[in-house]
Amino acid sequence: MPGHPTDHAGLEIMPFDVCLRLLASVSVGRIGFFADGEMVILPVNHVVDGQDLVFRTARGSKLSAAEGRDLVTFEADEYDEQTRSGWSVVVTGRAEVVYEDAEIQRLSRLGLHPWVTAAERPLWIRIRANAVSGRATPKAE
Amino acid sequence: MPGHPTDHAGLEIMPFDVCLRLLASVSVGRIGFFADGEMVILPVNHVVDGQDLVFRTARGSKLSAAEGRDLVTFEADEYDEQTRSGWSVVVTGRAEVVYEDAEIQRLSRLGLHPWVTAAERPLWIRIRANAVSGRATPKAE
Repeated sequence: MPGHPTDHAGLEIMPFDVCLRLLASVSVGRIGFFADGEMVILPVNHVVDGQDLVFRTARGSKLSAAEGRDLVTFEADEYDEQTRSGWSVVVTGRAEVVYEDAEIQRLSRLGLHPWVTAAERPLWIRIRANAVSGRATPKAE
Repeated sequence: MPGHPTDHAGLEIMPFDVCLRLLASVSVGRIGFFADGEMVILPVNHVVDGQDLVFRTARGSKLSAAEGRDLVTFEADEYDEQTRSGWSVVVTGRAEVVYEDAEIQRLSRLGLHPWVTAAERPLWIRIRANAVSGRATPKAE
């Protein structure tokens, strides 16, 4: 892979398609949003659906409150302590609850399996991406 | 380790000292804050200093703008795809630039080594923790 352009911090700026592929390559990301006057960052199990992110949550949870917020931010990353390298992709967008049965059926087939099963997680939340950006530490020569 | 109390989602609520120990056990976390009207989430290399988090950044970077914001949020986590288990610790607090030479000398000895060295990162930022909370997937029986 040829080198990508770098930002002011020396990080490589990844193309859109690479960002989406990396997002889909991990099963945990973090959603950030405002609730009760403070910023919340919570890990979620997610899947990528086109350019959107989909995850499940419980009714009444903080995450369910993300619906209708102005903008939420989703971040996923992966890094290697040994090589001190890694990447991070950030998505901003609007969160909305998926209500349509047919759509929920379709999403159910995308392979999303929340790790925590103690609570029911009947709500499907979709983040409609407005912007996707990604950075990676430069490849070693 | 005896079981910890669980939250409504079935996640174990970790004690304060465990949260600090876990924060210190990883070298990458994510800082979230508002800049230019949107929420930013960026990975940083951090160290734990008492109850505070310390990281380095470049002058003029988005991260340097975190200084003086009302509240910033810091999140670190670790998870295992195989066992589908993991933990997450979230810190909220105020970010401030460290200016005192003696304090910078002391912090320099804490072993913080930013992975990206292409840019200079002369600014030391401290997050003074207001609140620390942590959750973990329940231990398998």
